[in-house]
Amino acid sequence: MSDLWGQRAQAWLDRLAHCTAPGPGVTRLPFTPEHRAAIGVLTELMTQAGLTTHLDAAGTLIGRLEGPDGAPTLLMGSHQDSVREGGAYDGIMGVVLPVLALHKLRDEGVALPYAVEVLAFADEEGVRFPTALMGPRALAGTFDMAALDLRDADNVSLAQAMHDFGLVPEDLPTLRRDPTSVLGWVEVHLEQGPVLESAGNPLGVVTAICGIERHIVTLTGKAAHAGTMPMHLRQDALTAAAEFVLAVEALAKKTTDLLATIGTLQIRPGVVNAVPGTVTLSLEIRAPSDAVRTKAVEALTSQLHRITASRGIAADIQRTYAQPATPCAAAMMAALGEAISGNNQPAPRLASGATHDASAMADLCPVGMIFTTCKGGISHHPGEFVPVDAMQAAIDALCRFLAGWRIT
Amino acid sequence: MSDLWGQRAQAWLDRLAHCTAPGPGVTRLPFTPEHRAAIGVLTELMTQAGLTTHLDAAGTLIGRLEGPDGAPTLLMGSHQDSVREGGAYDGIMGVVLPVLALHKLRDEGVALPYAVEVLAFADEEGVRFPTALMGPRALAGTFDMAALDLRDADNVSLAQAMHDFGLVPEDLPTLRRDPTSVLGWVEVHLEQGPVLESAGNPLGVVTAICGIERHIVTLTGKAAHAGTMPMHLRQDALTAAAEFVLAVEALAKKTTDLLATIGTLQIRPGVVNAVPGTVTLSLEIRAPSDAVRTKAVEALTSQLHRITASRGIAADIQRTYAQPATPCAAAMMAALGEAISGNNQPAPRLASGATHDASAMADLCPVGMIFTTCKGGISHHPGEFVPVDAMQAAIDALCRFLAGWRIT
Repeated sequence: MSDLWGQRAQAWLDRLAHCTAPGPGVTRLPFTPEHRAAIGVLTELMTQAGLTTHLDAAGTLIGRLEGPDGAPTLLMGSHQDSVREGGAYDGIMGVVLPVLALHKLRDEGVALPYAVEVLAFADEEGVRFPTALMGPRALAGTFDMAALDLRDADNVSLAQAMHDFGLVPEDLPTLRRDPTSVLGWVEVHLEQGPVLESAGNPLGVVTAICGIERHIVTLTGKAAHAGTMPMHLRQDALTAAAEFVLAVEALAKKTTDLLATIGTLQIRPGVVNAVPGTVTLSLEIRAPSDAVRTKAVEALTSQLHRITASRGIAADIQRTYAQPATPCAAAMMAALGEAISGNNQPAPRLASGATHDASAMADLCPVGMIFTTCKGGISHHPGEFVPVDAMQAAIDALCRFLAGWRIT
Repeated sequence: MSDLWGQRAQAWLDRLAHCTAPGPGVTRLPFTPEHRAAIGVLTELMTQAGLTTHLDAAGTLIGRLEGPDGAPTLLMGSHQDSVREGGAYDGIMGVVLPVLALHKLRDEGVALPYAVEVLAFADEEGVRFPTALMGPRALAGTFDMAALDLRDADNVSLAQAMHDFGLVPEDLPTLRRDPTSVLGWVEVHLEQGPVLESAGNPLGVVTAICGIERHIVTLTGKAAHAGTMPMHLRQDALTAAAEFVLAVEALAKKTTDLLATIGTLQIRPGVVNAVPGTVTLSLEIRAPSDAVRTKAVEALTSQLHRITASRGIAADIQRTYAQPATPCAAAMMAALGEAISGNNQPAPRLASGATHDASAMADLCPVGMIFTTCKGGISHHPGEFVPVDAMQAAIDALCRFLAGWRIT
């Protein structure tokens, strides 16, 4: 099988990787000269594919393929921005691949019974400003205009940065789309994990974007002199925390699709010769099902209290963040799966632990996602890499999907 | 039973507690105006007891009761200094109680067949300079003169501070005592732990000052995105560390007199949404027997490697500090125990997890220690407290010990 289109994708991504601030890997933040340069390259890519382009008030570059009069529009794409010192594929590959799929269909003389727009959102990573997903939220009508006052590390407001970029943020409310005019959202993204690679699959169909909740857990024992407090009289907050860490791991290991992580842990007083008096740790739970996630937190909360009570230690657990799961549309999943397997590839299904533009687009329309394999599960790192044959497979699958997708 | 002498002890300790820098509790660092004030009060106390006093080149205040011509000398005492915002008993009580015991024996007309000196060492806590125990080390001939160049937070050298205090540090080598002239060292100190209080005992006989060793343990797994790395593919350094924390606790709980503490633990990358890649933690082991301590470290090292190997994680353990145990002399323990129980008190034996002047004195002569109970096991804190009846019991026990101790 030819990988000509995969090679073309790699060549465009190489060019786009040069649209970066200095330093290792790719650093492309929204409303910067690097963003401007990427818009230039993407406009060239879209124009060659026969799309007409414009930049909307949110800084989203939109390439449109017109459909029959009055036909609804299928939306595709992802984000143009990267994290600091990130890779050349995260986000931007999900813009390049659908444009090349439309280019390939045009070369093959295939006309679609609907319009298609490929979108390159300005900001999904939320690195520059303490907000993200402005582009899709504006389309869905869920953007909070108060976020325009948020400031970056140089004290520049989001509104000011957009003005300086030539945008009119006051027009954001006008971007809202009529849901009846939109067929759905299709996003291709690298998996950012090792599941597809370890199973030898180039592509997978995403079932849902996991819900996330985060908690701060505080265990309060009694600090003591490590030389004078006998073991049997200690109220050591760290040994209690250790029991909890293992309980969290055990529950997640035995529960399908549940991810549970303790990523931070602080000890007070935190010196070599003192029995830990207080431990504060973070607990993050992700699951594609909100019910599974909620049940897990309930179970872990009661395990926490059982562990600490048996050790004479006080425990407190406070939720600091919650984001519900975004299920992908069943019809989308079926069509994307058929498109992949029609290509003589297995179409495994997997949940997305990370958030994507699709999370916000789900407020507007049905969403579907294809994950590509990535080397070593690595992302947000200069070593991020998607093989050419996986990108070729994704373009082929998108072509089958686009040609086969029917307006229902 | 009268507690007149215990009340006198409390009155002197109240006066000495006023020899402090401003702030909560007692802050009395060596070679300061507070130290000078304490020397004044202690000189008055010693003179009233019939002792002749002088300040040696290390800043140790010595009160001497002469014995028969050519008779050897029994040394007693502790340190005058406190930690910052410490209490009114740690160290200084061990100077006041033996002086009052000698006063009481004089009142009772008891003559001793040996000389006695009560010593108030300048610096045991090591708060001002990064060294400690200069006084007892000078007597034992183990003081390293290079330490005179160490500087405090104001960049004043130890030598300069001593000169400014009117001392001649160059004379320190002349302080070395002939071991044949010294009968032994007896030190009274508050327990700084909850063992005596929880058993309802005012006094205990110390069996040994624990040996200490400290290690830095590093567990190296693989950092990963908490949303995209499935549980079964994780190499989480924290969950491995949690297993080790519990293994350390379990071994110490089942091994008599072994104390094991993990007081610090750092995670990298240490963010809420990343699987911990590296954990660095401190392991401190204390035991009154060096053999027990060494065996424990061997067992924990092999447990560490077993735990991490089963999780695909690398482990490294490096010893950063080691101090051997100081056993108390059997004859001293027996005599102090008889003196306590002859007072119709139980004489429980216990190890000292903390270091004391006795650790350094053991290089010169046989050492023995009495611990007094303290409220809540608290020390190094303004709330530090020893009840009057425990001090009375200690004075009574010291009198019995002094009157009964024979030159062997």
